Amino acid sequence: MRHVCFVVYSRANYARIKSAIRSCDEHPNLKVSVIVGASGLLYRFGNVSEIIRRDGIRIESEIYNAVEGDLPVSMARTTGLGLIDLAHEFHRLKPDIVVTVADRFETLSTAIASSYMNIVLAHTQGGELTGSIDESVRHAITKLAHLHFPATEKAVEIIKQLGENPNRIYNIGCPSIDIARLTPLENAFETLSRYSGVGADIEKDKPFLLVIQHPVTTEFQDAEEQISQTLEAVKESQVQAVWLWPNIDSGSDSVAKILRIFRESELNRTIRFYKNFSAEDYINILRGCAVIVGNSSSGIREASYLGVPSVNIGTRQSQRERGKNVVDTNYNSSEILQAIYLQLEKGKQEPDYMFGDGFAGNKLADILATVDLEIKKKFYLVR
Amino acid sequence: MRHVCFVVYSRANYARIKSAIRSCDEHPNLKVSVIVGASGLLYRFGNVSEIIRRDGIRIESEIYNAVEGDLPVSMARTTGLGLIDLAHEFHRLKPDIVVTVADRFETLSTAIASSYMNIVLAHTQGGELTGSIDESVRHAITKLAHLHFPATEKAVEIIKQLGENPNRIYNIGCPSIDIARLTPLENAFETLSRYSGVGADIEKDKPFLLVIQHPVTTEFQDAEEQISQTLEAVKESQVQAVWLWPNIDSGSDSVAKILRIFRESELNRTIRFYKNFSAEDYINILRGCAVIVGNSSSGIREASYLGVPSVNIGTRQSQRERGKNVVDTNYNSSEILQAIYLQLEKGKQEPDYMFGDGFAGNKLADILATVDLEIKKKFYLVR
Amino acid sequence: MRHVCFVVYSRANYARIKSAIRSCDEHPNLKVSVIVGASGLLYRFGNVSEIIRRDGIRIESEIYNAVEGDLPVSMARTTGLGLIDLAHEFHRLKPDIVVTVADRFETLSTAIASSYMNIVLAHTQGGELTGSIDESVRHAITKLAHLHFPATEKAVEIIKQLGENPNRIYNIGCPSIDIARLTPLENAFETLSRYSGVGADIEKDKPFLLVIQHPVTTEFQDAEEQISQTLEAVKESQVQAVWLWPNIDSGSDSVAKILRIFRESELNRTIRFYKNFSAEDYINILRGCAVIVGNSSSGIREASYLGVPSVNIGTRQSQRERGKNVVDTNYNSSEILQAIYLQLEKGKQEPDYMFGDGFAGNKLADILATVDLEIKKKFYLVR
Amino acid sequence: MRHVCFVVYSRANYARIKSAIRSCDEHPNLKVSVIVGASGLLYRFGNVSEIIRRDGIRIESEIYNAVEGDLPVSMARTTGLGLIDLAHEFHRLKPDIVVTVADRFETLSTAIASSYMNIVLAHTQGGELTGSIDESVRHAITKLAHLHFPATEKAVEIIKQLGENPNRIYNIGCPSIDIARLTPLENAFETLSRYSGVGADIEKDKPFLLVIQHPVTTEFQDAEEQISQTLEAVKESQVQAVWLWPNIDSGSDSVAKILRIFRESELNRTIRFYKNFSAEDYINILRGCAVIVGNSSSGIREASYLGVPSVNIGTRQSQRERGKNVVDTNYNSSEILQAIYLQLEKGKQEPDYMFGDGFAGNKLADILATVDLEIKKKFYLVR
Repeated sequence: MRHVCFVVYSRANYARIKSAIRSCDEHPNLKVSVIVGASGLLYRFGNVSEIIRRDGIRIESEIYNAVEGDLPVSMARTTGLGLIDLAHEFHRLKPDIVVTVADRFETLSTAIASSYMNIVLAHTQGGELTGSIDESVRHAITKLAHLHFPATEKAVEIIKQLGENPNRIYNIGCPSIDIARLTPLENAFETLSRYSGVGADIEKDKPFLLVIQHPVTTEFQDAEEQISQTLEAVKESQVQAVWLWPNIDSGSDSVAKILRIFRESELNRTIRFYKNFSAEDYINILRGCAVIVGNSSSGIREASYLGVPSVNIGTRQSQRERGKNVVDTNYNSSEILQAIYLQLEKGKQEPDYMFGDGFAGNKLADILATVDLEIKKKFYLVR
Repeated sequence: MRHVCFVVYSRANYARIKSAIRSCDEHPNLKVSVIVGASGLLYRFGNVSEIIRRDGIRIESEIYNAVEGDLPVSMARTTGLGLIDLAHEFHRLKPDIVVTVADRFETLSTAIASSYMNIVLAHTQGGELTGSIDESVRHAITKLAHLHFPATEKAVEIIKQLGENPNRIYNIGCPSIDIARLTPLENAFETLSRYSGVGADIEKDKPFLLVIQHPVTTEFQDAEEQISQTLEAVKESQVQAVWLWPNIDSGSDSVAKILRIFRESELNRTIRFYKNFSAEDYINILRGCAVIVGNSSSGIREASYLGVPSVNIGTRQSQRERGKNVVDTNYNSSEILQAIYLQLEKGKQEPDYMFGDGFAGNKLADILATVDLEIKKKFYLVR
Repeated sequence: MRHVCFVVYSRANYARIKSAIRSCDEHPNLKVSVIVGASGLLYRFGNVSEIIRRDGIRIESEIYNAVEGDLPVSMARTTGLGLIDLAHEFHRLKPDIVVTVADRFETLSTAIASSYMNIVLAHTQGGELTGSIDESVRHAITKLAHLHFPATEKAVEIIKQLGENPNRIYNIGCPSIDIARLTPLENAFETLSRYSGVGADIEKDKPFLLVIQHPVTTEFQDAEEQISQTLEAVKESQVQAVWLWPNIDSGSDSVAKILRIFRESELNRTIRFYKNFSAEDYINILRGCAVIVGNSSSGIREASYLGVPSVNIGTRQSQRERGKNVVDTNYNSSEILQAIYLQLEKGKQEPDYMFGDGFAGNKLADILATVDLEIKKKFYLVR
Repeated sequence: MRHVCFVVYSRANYARIKSAIRSCDEHPNLKVSVIVGASGLLYRFGNVSEIIRRDGIRIESEIYNAVEGDLPVSMARTTGLGLIDLAHEFHRLKPDIVVTVADRFETLSTAIASSYMNIVLAHTQGGELTGSIDESVRHAITKLAHLHFPATEKAVEIIKQLGENPNRIYNIGCPSIDIARLTPLENAFETLSRYSGVGADIEKDKPFLLVIQHPVTTEFQDAEEQISQTLEAVKESQVQAVWLWPNIDSGSDSVAKILRIFRESELNRTIRFYKNFSAEDYINILRGCAVIVGNSSSGIREASYLGVPSVNIGTRQSQRERGKNVVDTNYNSSEILQAIYLQLEKGKQEPDYMFGDGFAGNKLADILATVDLEIKKKFYLVR
């Protein structure tokens, strides 16, 4: 019986690993512990721990490691405190395998604690190219990890170039596609009616935009200007919009301020702001929207599987692979507006399985249950 | 005037960066801050901070982040606390560039603090292949760093494979060779006479072995057995030996115990144990020894430049490039003994410049003074 | 030249120590360092560090130690992280004296770092009886402190009972009275016009209530109910009100939610909410209000000196001395309303100097410049 | 069923709380969790966690919070890290009551975590007067604690003076007396034969001194001189001696150095050094020694109950109550020598129950099982 420990640091982390947690939990040869930390515990970031409990998953422990502040110093300290806490928890729990998700800055603490403590580290969604500090974090984790579970063939190639053992790289597809596959269809307006939100009313059965724009940490001094351009374009489009609140990264305080001011101003006639949705509800809202706008990776991944047109803004996803559903723009309101109109015209598209077939969780569980738990690593030269 | 901050976490860190600190300090366009932390502050690891002060270098601040304990949990927590502290110090000092040295486990905290806080990170001695967790740490740092200062051509190739920008990779040679070049020659027995040491007496003008063997962190449960094999071989050789105390890594407590017991036993007729030497004194002792034995990288690098025969034991340096002065063995006393005899017979060898010409510090300073301080990174595909 | 280090953890901390910092700064025999931490650095708690800089005081360093979260676990961790940081800073700065202010939970970290590191600890506003965890913190600090600067005679007696050396207790009065004395008079509506606030408009030259109610940490599960009672009473009074946002303590998230919902509802016709005021502006708003309502200590202290009628609600100030300007009530909207009407009728009152004459800062500076810096303590028995 | 959590930070902590842990564990209405941290986990301080496990007590979790270093900065940081860890553990375990022992510097972290998190804090051995920072720590804990379990009547009076509720103060006697009562008698030389020790041989059936001298933290710069005086006196006495290694406090590194040098010198003909004894073995060694010498509280407490003559040196126990078995001296070798001779002459004395009857653990368990778990505190005035 292998003991697998998942560390979940945020709403986005959870959405991308949920199906894998469930598959491991149901696997006869695996025992699961889930640790939730950082913004995953905070009300203002969607209180993921409560969502996890509602999903019937027991939380082994909670790590209060989010150091408050609107500057990068807090990101670094949050990661340091997380490392201190996870070292304690891994020492206490002695798992055989630790699973870390993707690339948020705090997750480097999971990778360090696990690899330093000679525990097999499994990493999902490695090998993607996105620019920004997230990419550096992602590759650094790859260099500490023992088992790689990327989501695309291109990512597999990158991980190989990084010198990892090809036999320890498993393209399982993206676990977020699992959620898209598993989520029972519901009308998006019915879904939305269960959330209060603040701002303009959303009219039923009319097309709506779904907007998510996170501050980019290497550009956090421009974050205000960037969000303003998007706000302008969405306002100008005169299409009603569901706007999802951004992440905890540095720069979000000033971004939040701009959104808050606009939300309460008279100029707001079409946009309704929401703090967060459950992973499943998010899928149905995405499935039901006319166009997804912003820089969320779901505009690339889930949207591709679901055939939803996507307007991707700026540098955050700049090097990520993408399907035909995506139109890219700069941080420029008229460009963004044009792209929105273009996508509205095109409408719903064919599903594309480039990010997986929706069975990533099952594959991950099967591999973890049987794989050789070797922790020695060797650099593989490519030529 | 650019502000360059060096973080020194140990005796070995300092030896490898000292010439660069000095060159930057003397450069008209650079201002230097030195932060010392972890075992660099501890008496039982050679109190590097005092050595630094004696070298005339001002220490900007000291970080007490070494979490005590004989298990990997302490390594992880030391790194976490270091990250918390360095984030504070970088926020306070606001350097333009942070320099991190090589690959000790704590140094990952320097890399994270710097890169998360949008400060240009310069990394020395990246790209080397050594096996063990150190190598994972080293490559993870490369993926967070903006400027790379590897010590060999092979290392340059590895950093390129890791996807780094070839224009940001500078082969300056190894700064430790600088020390070897700059250290005035002194008779090794004179040097040794300034240190007390404990154990057998060292007889003047007779050949002696220099032994340094650090526990390997991924094998720390075998550390006792491994050190015992070396001890056996050195004892059997009947050549007198200068034995340098190992590093702080996990596993060293039990290793220290074995050494301590032997040191005080009647069986010890030929070995004298020393806590540490200054970097310069170490060079002269290395220069004067008949053979260097163990798994220190100085047996590969400085020994190559100085033409000293080296017996390299086990996996710690397993993938590092090496010159003709090195004979490799397993953790096996008779193999080790045989290699010692072989090397004694060969005697002093020709200098080899594969690890640099001894001007690494000057080159580093010149580059830091003028290089573009860009923090955006992009993955470079090799084909 | 003695080096005095002040640690400021919040807006309230600063208001109560500002005059002392200034007096020490101007003293010929004292050198001052100011460290700002926790909520003192956060935008949503009034960004005290910026206020300090605007006051012309140099900040030696900033400590990002606020661990986010709405539960007491975060209070404890914030204190622990503060202790780690202050130990570093005190080691770096080596002050002769550390000054800690009053009793916020984080300030225990200042007291521990200073006393453990053999640095003379001076404590202002000790010896007050208030119930709640703050009182326990305050007395614990007294037991670690070497020099006591209480604000009232009753407090002096309490500190004596706590076994402290009577010769090390100096009743200097409350430094917050200094602010009241030193602040140039300004019309409160003019003052208010410089702040935006959110909610109903404040009409000029009409009487207004000033409301501040912080969650009580030992009752934090009742915090929502308690704030609702006050909200009800203030609404019912039909007197316009300036409502100042509460502190960062546990429980404030749900309190903030209630206030935010009300603020944006149609029911709000009389209340305007403000995030914070500078210490001086606060004095003029307090000076100009008809009644101060809530549980802020300023309703007891500054209000007494200024002769402002005060309605003090609940347990937070329950054991504090008070003058004739105060009427106490329970957490009950009709009681509160009645007390407000009573105080409106009574109107402005005679100044009372029971909390000091406004020269506390000067006295503190003079004593610190000359006092014996003994760190050995002895318990004084009373009989 | 009440959940009681004990935090054990050192060998000495454990000896003084062991009987209480056992009594609570056996109590039908109590559930026990034991957390071990700091030097309690370290090999060089006696590895208490292993002793606890051998005593059949399950350890719920281990906290690696000892920050290494020979300066007070490490004491403060160890406490801060302990606070961070205990907040996590108390949040995870949600005990009804936390028990903290006596006054070591780290224990303040237990007191803060518990009281800030609204968990009832029980404190043993409060109210004692000893001078030094330990006393400040002890009283600070009293001010945070809800239930007081002092060991003497005089201590009860001090706690009352500190303003605590007389109804929450229970004189149970000192739990260390429980160990003395419960430990089966064994010949001291037989006990000693189970420990190796280093130094001179101990001759059987001849009188021996038992020496324990900890560095005093407020005098840590004098620690070397102080230990040297004692060493001189013990050497001069020509009576053989069992010398127990000192605690982890600041200053111990240089003290350890002096002891180590002496231990291995030719001058050492009578002293054998031991790292540590189990609590029970310690009792039998104390019971069998001719005189206990140094500044351990066991020379005051257990020695009194056992009728062992004691030479108490210096300030560490200066204000503690003491029985007739104690002779006090300064840090002066000739004074110490004279006192040793005096006590050797007097010989074994009558037992004295001033520190308890040996049933403290049972009493503590019974009270914790039934006491009102109120966390609100009120200051009690004495007149």
